[in-house]
Amino acid sequence: MNKDIIQPRTLPGFRDFPPEAMIPRERLMETARNVFRSYGFAPIDTPALEFLEILTGKGSEETDRQMYHFVDNGGRAVGMRFDLTVPLARFVAQHVDKLGLPFKRYHIGPVWRGERQQAGRYREFIQSDFDTIGSTSIASDVETAMVIHDLLRAIGFDKFKIRINNRKLLNGLLEQFGLADKTAQVLRSVDKLEKAGREKVTVELQAAGVGDQQISQIIDLVSIRGTNDQVIDRLAGIATENEFARQGLDELREIATLIGASGACAENFQIDPSIARGLDYYTGVVFETILEADAEIGSVCSGGRYDNLAGLYTNRQLPGIGASLGLDRLLASMERQKMLPGVRTSADVLIVNFGSEHLGKYLQIARQIRMSGLGVEVYPDDRKLGQQFKYADQRGYAVCLVAGGDELARQQVKLKWMTSGQQADVFLEPDAHSVVTALREGLKSEA
Amino acid sequence: MNKDIIQPRTLPGFRDFPPEAMIPRERLMETARNVFRSYGFAPIDTPALEFLEILTGKGSEETDRQMYHFVDNGGRAVGMRFDLTVPLARFVAQHVDKLGLPFKRYHIGPVWRGERQQAGRYREFIQSDFDTIGSTSIASDVETAMVIHDLLRAIGFDKFKIRINNRKLLNGLLEQFGLADKTAQVLRSVDKLEKAGREKVTVELQAAGVGDQQISQIIDLVSIRGTNDQVIDRLAGIATENEFARQGLDELREIATLIGASGACAENFQIDPSIARGLDYYTGVVFETILEADAEIGSVCSGGRYDNLAGLYTNRQLPGIGASLGLDRLLASMERQKMLPGVRTSADVLIVNFGSEHLGKYLQIARQIRMSGLGVEVYPDDRKLGQQFKYADQRGYAVCLVAGGDELARQQVKLKWMTSGQQADVFLEPDAHSVVTALREGLKSEA
Repeated sequence: MNKDIIQPRTLPGFRDFPPEAMIPRERLMETARNVFRSYGFAPIDTPALEFLEILTGKGSEETDRQMYHFVDNGGRAVGMRFDLTVPLARFVAQHVDKLGLPFKRYHIGPVWRGERQQAGRYREFIQSDFDTIGSTSIASDVETAMVIHDLLRAIGFDKFKIRINNRKLLNGLLEQFGLADKTAQVLRSVDKLEKAGREKVTVELQAAGVGDQQISQIIDLVSIRGTNDQVIDRLAGIATENEFARQGLDELREIATLIGASGACAENFQIDPSIARGLDYYTGVVFETILEADAEIGSVCSGGRYDNLAGLYTNRQLPGIGASLGLDRLLASMERQKMLPGVRTSADVLIVNFGSEHLGKYLQIARQIRMSGLGVEVYPDDRKLGQQFKYADQRGYAVCLVAGGDELARQQVKLKWMTSGQQADVFLEPDAHSVVTALREGLKSEA
Repeated sequence: MNKDIIQPRTLPGFRDFPPEAMIPRERLMETARNVFRSYGFAPIDTPALEFLEILTGKGSEETDRQMYHFVDNGGRAVGMRFDLTVPLARFVAQHVDKLGLPFKRYHIGPVWRGERQQAGRYREFIQSDFDTIGSTSIASDVETAMVIHDLLRAIGFDKFKIRINNRKLLNGLLEQFGLADKTAQVLRSVDKLEKAGREKVTVELQAAGVGDQQISQIIDLVSIRGTNDQVIDRLAGIATENEFARQGLDELREIATLIGASGACAENFQIDPSIARGLDYYTGVVFETILEADAEIGSVCSGGRYDNLAGLYTNRQLPGIGASLGLDRLLASMERQKMLPGVRTSADVLIVNFGSEHLGKYLQIARQIRMSGLGVEVYPDDRKLGQQFKYADQRGYAVCLVAGGDELARQQVKLKWMTSGQQADVFLEPDAHSVVTALREGLKSEA
């Protein structure tokens, strides 16, 4: 190897996406956009780089350490965004007068975190968030759950649970249990219950000074399971003393009723008092979403309601609700469940190339097929047929259009279907009408 | 104002995209993706951050100075990509054995340049590139021009010229004129002819030691205009002595013939011997694209053929051809030409909210309308009607669905069309069939 060559490689924790990985990613992002749009969420974008003070304003020490930050050529301290929530807060604070409220936005874009490397953790990944700012209505709460439901169904999942809880209920009950001063700590421990198990959480809570009776109250509470009606009834029996808890429970009850009225698949929604979401800033309804076939990968879409999005950047109180879709987790699950097509091309048809004397004809046929909405590649070089078919196979083309001098002289083309190996001669009119029809029918019956 | 508030602002040269700007950007990127796909180009993505040595390998001093680079937490010298060509070269060099050739990819993503600020120059912008690697066939040359043609037509432009030239022709003729040693310099000057004018370019060429007769040969050459046949004839009269020039001219002739055979609109393609493209690495056909109504903004899609994409990262010779679509320029022109819708919502219908007692019904109607493919927002709060209509107007909703207790009791809804002000009562069946039909028809007739 030439010693002057620079070794081509990516930074640790960063990924290249070749077509077979990028095609399903793009499709997933398109599905997400379509669902967001169907609810009236509008797209925004914000810079990858922000003034460092904007990004560190809200960050914990942990976030600060993980952030990519540096001084730019103009001497400014800048950082690469580590999520889309801080940029949203900055954006809304800056533009709220022009935006108007309620403001419903989605934002799909890369974020960067210099985390220590571990399996399944990347330093660059796409976040896909949607939020409704400026309304405290339960309509937005229900709608957020609906969007998650529609997203997963549109992607192709039907066995999943959107677990719904309410932080007012949790906080209120902890107050009722005499743990008002330990709420954040308790919720962080409870959040680990499913993964770490009851014993570890008990030890952690004991260490935090939570009494044994309180621990058993907490664990009883978060272990409640059943139909939504059953769970609500059980909770109603516990949430007897605290006004805040009763209010949270009323909201959960209303959400369950509205989901029923909407016509969405009720079995995808589960009231679950164990859901806390680690973050401190949720103040109302909270969500997690578990794929039944892949529960161990954790939540694929999470979020909740907050009282004040942008307190760091404006004195204006901006309540809202939103959630974030985990693209990487969804794609990993789709791959395991064989829900991905495994192709390396975005087109349907490969036109085999018999030589430059036919190129004008191939370009014309390709254009005619494209006008019907199908994708066509003309193989650029005059290579051996076997090599061209191998290429078609390796890319995952559904069908090859084969037209050498003999076929073209007879005003015919041959369609060779790659999976079945079936071949058919089709008449080639000046507008390629029969070819388009045969391709459409064949692709339909293969799908 | 509270003194603890961090002022919400973006870095100079960086932009926020609110919905009214982002909706057309997303639409444009979707159109580009669809056209790329229709030719069998497949998507890839690469990291925003690369090892600095990868990025500086090819860069000029100018590029290096403009690049955002820093040392990461792991002590690595890293940089933010400043284009998508260097990452493509690195990507193909690294993965070529798995990718197979020919490899056709598109890549749409942000790049960063810390340029000195000037009007219309941003430090972060989206690039939208497509390339065919591993073929030297003229089929790829023609296809690249076709993609540009289809892209602009799909976006909604019909008056544009794709100017086509060939670097072999230019280089060969410069050799014939006795300027082989000054090729790069001459081409850089010629590239400025349209903007700077004949006199300035003459002075520049004189300063570079080009003789007066040579200058007039050069300027005569790049001033040739006419139909493609006329231009080719004129060029054939000049390209008499140099083999390289004759080969370049033959390629241009073949490209013109193939474009004619393909059925694309021939008037959008113009053989133009003045097109040089400043970059040194083009070696064959080169393209520029001018919008006739907005010629002064410069080329909106440019590219060309190169002999060796990735010589810095591999010993393997990788020829290819590609082009880059200028999203910002296209959008600026579309805005000036009133081709943008000016809406701030992705949905069609706003359901007006008469109170929480009807919310279940609204959610149900919204779901039924969505299932037909239309977008619907349910206004989340129980506000005054005037306020809700104002919101619909400000967002650009086409139609409001108005259903208070009275309407719902009569199993009716009212559709209020925002532009015309027309209203119509529609019967509300359990599946909202008539509402969906009325919405579809109304939206169609408004479009």
